[in-house]
Amino acid sequence: MKEFTEEYLDRMRDIAAARNEEEARKELEEMHPADIAELYQSLDLKEAEFLYDLLDEDTRAEVLMELDEDDRRKLLADMPAMEIAKQVIDHLDSDEAVDLIQELDEEDREEILSHIDDMEQAGDILDLLKYDEDTAGGLMGTEMIVVNENWSMPECIKQMRMQAEEIDEIYYVYVVDDEERLKGILPLKTVITHPSVQKIKSVMEDDPVAVKADTPIDEVALDFEKYDLVVMPVVDSIGRLVGRITVDDVMDKVRESSERDYQLASGLSSDVDADDSIWAQTKARIPWLLIGVASGILASVILGGFESQLQAVSALALFIPLIGGTGGNVGVQSSAIIVQGLANGSLDVKEFGKQVWKEFRIGLLNASVISLVTFVYNIFFIPDDFAVTMSVTLSLFFVTMFATLLGTAIPLTFEKFKINPALATGPFIQITNDIIGILIYVYVSSWLLGMFAA
Amino acid sequence: MKEFTEEYLDRMRDIAAARNEEEARKELEEMHPADIAELYQSLDLKEAEFLYDLLDEDTRAEVLMELDEDDRRKLLADMPAMEIAKQVIDHLDSDEAVDLIQELDEEDREEILSHIDDMEQAGDILDLLKYDEDTAGGLMGTEMIVVNENWSMPECIKQMRMQAEEIDEIYYVYVVDDEERLKGILPLKTVITHPSVQKIKSVMEDDPVAVKADTPIDEVALDFEKYDLVVMPVVDSIGRLVGRITVDDVMDKVRESSERDYQLASGLSSDVDADDSIWAQTKARIPWLLIGVASGILASVILGGFESQLQAVSALALFIPLIGGTGGNVGVQSSAIIVQGLANGSLDVKEFGKQVWKEFRIGLLNASVISLVTFVYNIFFIPDDFAVTMSVTLSLFFVTMFATLLGTAIPLTFEKFKINPALATGPFIQITNDIIGILIYVYVSSWLLGMFAA
Repeated sequence: MKEFTEEYLDRMRDIAAARNEEEARKELEEMHPADIAELYQSLDLKEAEFLYDLLDEDTRAEVLMELDEDDRRKLLADMPAMEIAKQVIDHLDSDEAVDLIQELDEEDREEILSHIDDMEQAGDILDLLKYDEDTAGGLMGTEMIVVNENWSMPECIKQMRMQAEEIDEIYYVYVVDDEERLKGILPLKTVITHPSVQKIKSVMEDDPVAVKADTPIDEVALDFEKYDLVVMPVVDSIGRLVGRITVDDVMDKVRESSERDYQLASGLSSDVDADDSIWAQTKARIPWLLIGVASGILASVILGGFESQLQAVSALALFIPLIGGTGGNVGVQSSAIIVQGLANGSLDVKEFGKQVWKEFRIGLLNASVISLVTFVYNIFFIPDDFAVTMSVTLSLFFVTMFATLLGTAIPLTFEKFKINPALATGPFIQITNDIIGILIYVYVSSWLLGMFAA
Repeated sequence: MKEFTEEYLDRMRDIAAARNEEEARKELEEMHPADIAELYQSLDLKEAEFLYDLLDEDTRAEVLMELDEDDRRKLLADMPAMEIAKQVIDHLDSDEAVDLIQELDEEDREEILSHIDDMEQAGDILDLLKYDEDTAGGLMGTEMIVVNENWSMPECIKQMRMQAEEIDEIYYVYVVDDEERLKGILPLKTVITHPSVQKIKSVMEDDPVAVKADTPIDEVALDFEKYDLVVMPVVDSIGRLVGRITVDDVMDKVRESSERDYQLASGLSSDVDADDSIWAQTKARIPWLLIGVASGILASVILGGFESQLQAVSALALFIPLIGGTGGNVGVQSSAIIVQGLANGSLDVKEFGKQVWKEFRIGLLNASVISLVTFVYNIFFIPDDFAVTMSVTLSLFFVTMFATLLGTAIPLTFEKFKINPALATGPFIQITNDIIGILIYVYVSSWLLGMFAA
């Protein structure tokens, strides 16, 4: 990865300040659009714009797509719809064009679409816009080489040469029948190794892995990983080829969705990055913190009802952190395993009962170990308070069992009702188990202290 | 993705029980190795082995690599070294062969290597074994089409046809100079569109994105994502082409490492999945749970030194969960943002001071809101205990500030000393902040109660 040193950035700043077009062009010429975008974002807006204006339209469109959404939005805000259509959209692949258009306001969309000269591209974009963003259709592009199964290889190669100019990267040729149904794929390697075959259907790979356009993105990603794919064809409900998905788009989605799960598990309520503003970060953090405060206050109210006992047996108060902390830790572990299993396909929500039963046994094991350790410690170090020892030990046992089952059942239930199970981890589980832990502790110790007092 | 229904599995079980080879072969014929592996893992060992033995050697090797590590180990345990060398390694790409050999015991490795007939492959594997598993060298394979920059396209195509049989997937041809230094890449598309070019250096893409063999895998993955690559060439320190990395291996690593971060943040000390055994899962969970218990006991000792005050002002005990919980939540948020920023490249450890200062201001904002909310609640609902209100409010402020800074500084410090920063999230931060929170609470309230009493 290109790392821009401070010296390099200073040099570019000087070039931009001097408006030295020749020198700037020389620097930019050999740079990858992704690097230019990084440079753009490391410079002041004025410097960045000077460099951006020197690029040719193709590179400009590519750099634009590599920028952060905020920067892209700012750049586009200054461009008239006609310019966006002709200078940007026209140079993008259909899937990128659709991503860009989806970022715009509803009213701008129509206007931009009306300015696209290439009617075929405009039609493709309109078709793609109909698909749900979170499905294979929303991720696919339409740039691909399509040939008929009955063609000969020389015909196929001629067709490829004609279509190849419009398409940046080609790894496979798609083979369809007369009804446009996907019949096979032809790796470019086969094209080169079998240049004179009479019917390409005799050398194509039959039954290629393909997805229906309405397949959720998560499943598409798992398929890419399972079959080690680079590109995957997308078909409609009757098997006609409608597009293709490339691995780079899938990788972005995999990273996005695992980052999102991690953030949810860490109590961040919206997508933030370390380089986001203080304000954006506070907005993402404060909701769960306030829910935490509310639950802490609720805990104080519950404990308040128990205040006379806390006063009488003050040793009970000392173990409040132990009870709450253990419940939280146990619950977070269970929920993390469920959420991850659902995400990577190793767990199916249909196995609800089986998984709960399994977690029940794991909980039993953990609860026994934890209670035993605590019991032994208390017996040795606070031997004169047997009622407290028993209260803490028993409460820990129940809290661990309860937290395990809750940590399993809540994310599975969320999944069942099509709610993101990752919401049911981290602070949600932690806080729920804190409160339940304290309730269990209060009731168990009241009961035991009553028994021992009698 | 292929989903095996229970009916289908039953049918396959019947076929295996009847040892109906013809029917079984018909089913397996059209199946992708990844699907066969899934089927294998859904059946009993005996049924699975019956099907496995029907496969040709190539497919058998591929299925083997798609199995879970445990199943693969079991299968290999029954095979003599000679068979592993000739029937498995011989059919694998060099990078897969290396992965497989690395899973074996030290003593088996040598023996298997000695049985490989193809001296070139044996040499490649030995070379690859020298690289660190977590670097580009450890991930790369050596199967690629390499041509000289001065060749003509027809020469290049001839060479491709010769080499192509040994290589499953080809997307690019690598172009080197007479000293084997990487000079460019040739997309297969160019081969087809420019079939008669005299010197391929005139049509190759110069300056391809490449990595040095000792580049850490995380950086390789970020490069793949940044430049939307499908395959990336690997060079040695003087620029000679030594191998290539394919996107499917990178994707596996990206998923693995983000799953690992998520697990660490959830208090799981080793890599487990929802379908792992109860025993494996307990082993992964119990360490952090016991650390949690130890810290809970430590908290009870700290609070014990404070018992007379808790007895005198019992309302203090009610807010213990609020203080500990808030510290934990705040710290987990900060550390998650740091860990994720380091992982996706949006944050550089060189910005240590800048990031701490930023978090300081975010902490100030959060601490003010949290303390204010708690103060207002206490003033309204427990108005007669002003000393307690002030103790809780002030403690919460300090705890939030402290937890924010700790949640930022610890993962950054870990990263600086090349320890995985993901270790410094989740239960680690939660527990540390719990204890520190209680210490702050004890000291602040002792001081304030002393003041109010005076």
